[in-house]
Amino acid sequence: MTEQKATNVTWHDHRVSKEERVALNGHKGAVLWFTGLSGCGKSTVANTVDHLLHQRKAHTFVLDGDNIRMGLNKNLGFSPEDRTENIRRIGEVSKLFAEAGIIVTTAFISPYREDRDKVRELLGEGEFIEIYVKASLETCEARDPKGLYKKARAGEIKGFTGIDAPYEEPENAELVLDSDNKGIDDLAAEVVAYLDEKGYLSA
Amino acid sequence: MTEQKATNVTWHDHRVSKEERVALNGHKGAVLWFTGLSGCGKSTVANTVDHLLHQRKAHTFVLDGDNIRMGLNKNLGFSPEDRTENIRRIGEVSKLFAEAGIIVTTAFISPYREDRDKVRELLGEGEFIEIYVKASLETCEARDPKGLYKKARAGEIKGFTGIDAPYEEPENAELVLDSDNKGIDDLAAEVVAYLDEKGYLSA
Repeated sequence: MTEQKATNVTWHDHRVSKEERVALNGHKGAVLWFTGLSGCGKSTVANTVDHLLHQRKAHTFVLDGDNIRMGLNKNLGFSPEDRTENIRRIGEVSKLFAEAGIIVTTAFISPYREDRDKVRELLGEGEFIEIYVKASLETCEARDPKGLYKKARAGEIKGFTGIDAPYEEPENAELVLDSDNKGIDDLAAEVVAYLDEKGYLSA
Repeated sequence: MTEQKATNVTWHDHRVSKEERVALNGHKGAVLWFTGLSGCGKSTVANTVDHLLHQRKAHTFVLDGDNIRMGLNKNLGFSPEDRTENIRRIGEVSKLFAEAGIIVTTAFISPYREDRDKVRELLGEGEFIEIYVKASLETCEARDPKGLYKKARAGEIKGFTGIDAPYEEPENAELVLDSDNKGIDDLAAEVVAYLDEKGYLSA
């Protein structure tokens, strides 16, 4: 009798497709990948975009240092290898959120072009939107909201992006935001306008 | 003038709260953590539950071997250390989905009690629902949908749970499903009934 028990185990598979999740949400899933120097404003713009999309009833989420570095990636440091693994994992998690039909926003320095391009390759056509929050080192260092540049200049932090570690600017970003000259609300509005124009906000 | 540019960078923070995401979705976020031997039916029950919830307009997602082992955890093997790291990462990703207001279902053997309990500790009160899909080794081996038990018995796979690696049964699972004697649809219905009864499906 053993073979007769629960014989529907293997051939009964109701998987909900990405298309069905998109239809339920009323918009597409996508990854809004913010990149830029520390202090460029990427986390603030990212959260503002998320807030605007949420107000429009979009299903969204934000991945940033607060919920990644203390959780999933708490066993990673800041060596080049660990930075690469950090971005790889964030890319894979972003992909899962996009598959779930969510518009997920990520806000990490992500200084290496190759690492960002690998995330782009993970995702489907149009699902990866690279947003370069461009601010000069001078601007970022003048803002220095967490006092990190000061510490890096004093040699208390090693391998700090822009000081003694490289930042590789995007060459083909979908959006470049001018954070030297514009405020948060204007920059966030540019992102939402892009999503509207490209049809992301309808299913 | 540098200090005057985009001075709203640091004090302007619109974070969407978990409560706001739950209100938009119309139900709570939670982790349905399925555990059990290979062949117990956990992936099939998990996907059936996900399908039933989706039909009820719940915002859901499934994490399983298909989208985790080939992606986020592709750099992990099956040693005890790697199994622990595998479950840790899945736990952290599940937590992110729950924070996003999603009902996320996971379907992994997750044989070690300590690893599962650590995931429970990551999550808030009531957010972690451990579901033990209980089937005897005899039942699972008779089903052997992927021919893995046969390979393990032949010594072609080492460290196979139930054969030459331990499975530690849950001691305080929220649900124990009798997969020796019931079919997939009945088991899935038990899970949905639990969620209804406990109020997960309303915001």
